[in-house]
Amino acid sequence: MTFLNEKKTFLAKLDKSKKGSIDERAIPLITTINKKDNYYTTSSCSGRVYLWQGTGKKNETTWLKVSHDPITVDFLKSDSDKMDEESSKNNPIWLRLEAFIMHIACKDIDAASALLNQIHPLFKKSCILSISNKIIVEIRGSEFIEMPLYQNNTLVFRGDLNWLTDLINEKLEKIWEGIDKFKRMIEYSKQTK
Amino acid sequence: MTFLNEKKTFLAKLDKSKKGSIDERAIPLITTINKKDNYYTTSSCSGRVYLWQGTGKKNETTWLKVSHDPITVDFLKSDSDKMDEESSKNNPIWLRLEAFIMHIACKDIDAASALLNQIHPLFKKSCILSISNKIIVEIRGSEFIEMPLYQNNTLVFRGDLNWLTDLINEKLEKIWEGIDKFKRMIEYSKQTK
Repeated sequence: MTFLNEKKTFLAKLDKSKKGSIDERAIPLITTINKKDNYYTTSSCSGRVYLWQGTGKKNETTWLKVSHDPITVDFLKSDSDKMDEESSKNNPIWLRLEAFIMHIACKDIDAASALLNQIHPLFKKSCILSISNKIIVEIRGSEFIEMPLYQNNTLVFRGDLNWLTDLINEKLEKIWEGIDKFKRMIEYSKQTK
Repeated sequence: MTFLNEKKTFLAKLDKSKKGSIDERAIPLITTINKKDNYYTTSSCSGRVYLWQGTGKKNETTWLKVSHDPITVDFLKSDSDKMDEESSKNNPIWLRLEAFIMHIACKDIDAASALLNQIHPLFKKSCILSISNKIIVEIRGSEFIEMPLYQNNTLVFRGDLNWLTDLINEKLEKIWEGIDKFKRMIEYSKQTK
């Protein structure tokens, strides 16, 4: 199958993410990339914050709440329905913030390399995920939080929750600015066609 | 220059890391990789935990203390010499734990792909960092902590510091187990020569 046919077939498929829909904040960027002959997006998340509990492995982890938008302080407060279950009492509840991440299929190694070189000043952690089947470039931001927030159903953060809320929202804003910069950087670029 | 000459030249150079010496825990793995014709290691860190303050950008960040070994609870406690400076009073002090990371130069794209395919079940976040000059594969673990620990010189974690210390040390142990598994996986492997 040619790259163009692969692209058409892939983009006709339904979204299969946990969220079930494409993040609105990524749509202008996705449209920009998919207009280019040598690239198409296969998945993305434009940043999110969530509370989770478990081992961290896929089938042993529960997401208690998730936000793709700025949070209010209530997001960090105990949610008795989910947090009071006997079975989970002794496991800490973690707060995690994840940066923007996007996977982009590339026509060939040269196209992948051109994209990587262009995007590297903006997203240092970008790299090529696979080359053996599809050639996939991963674009990834650097923002991250991973901290235990509850232990034995007790809040273990004793600072000002409003301060922590602001800190999270500032990181989210920074992530979204990065997405806009990325779009502007490649929109009329001759390096990535 | 041939790959073999590049390898010899590189491996004869002095260590240029912040730490100034190679992490002992990575040496058996480094030796194993450098015995292979198609690969050599260019840098590595076998996991570390540190307290930092600043913007997160390289020149605007101070490391207050760092450990490449299991910590005691004192590591998390305030160090008045460094933490009391007027200028840094209002900036939070962050606790960060970073996983094992290693960069491996590969002879060609096929060698990079073989290494990636083999290592992927163990280190899902591994990828190819660059292909335009050297071909570098990055191997990276998934363990991570990034949490504000002090705000205005006050500890903002109100849980048991011994519990947090244990949690950090368990993550470090898990990281080191991963390094050993990696070594055993590739030592006699025919996929990566």
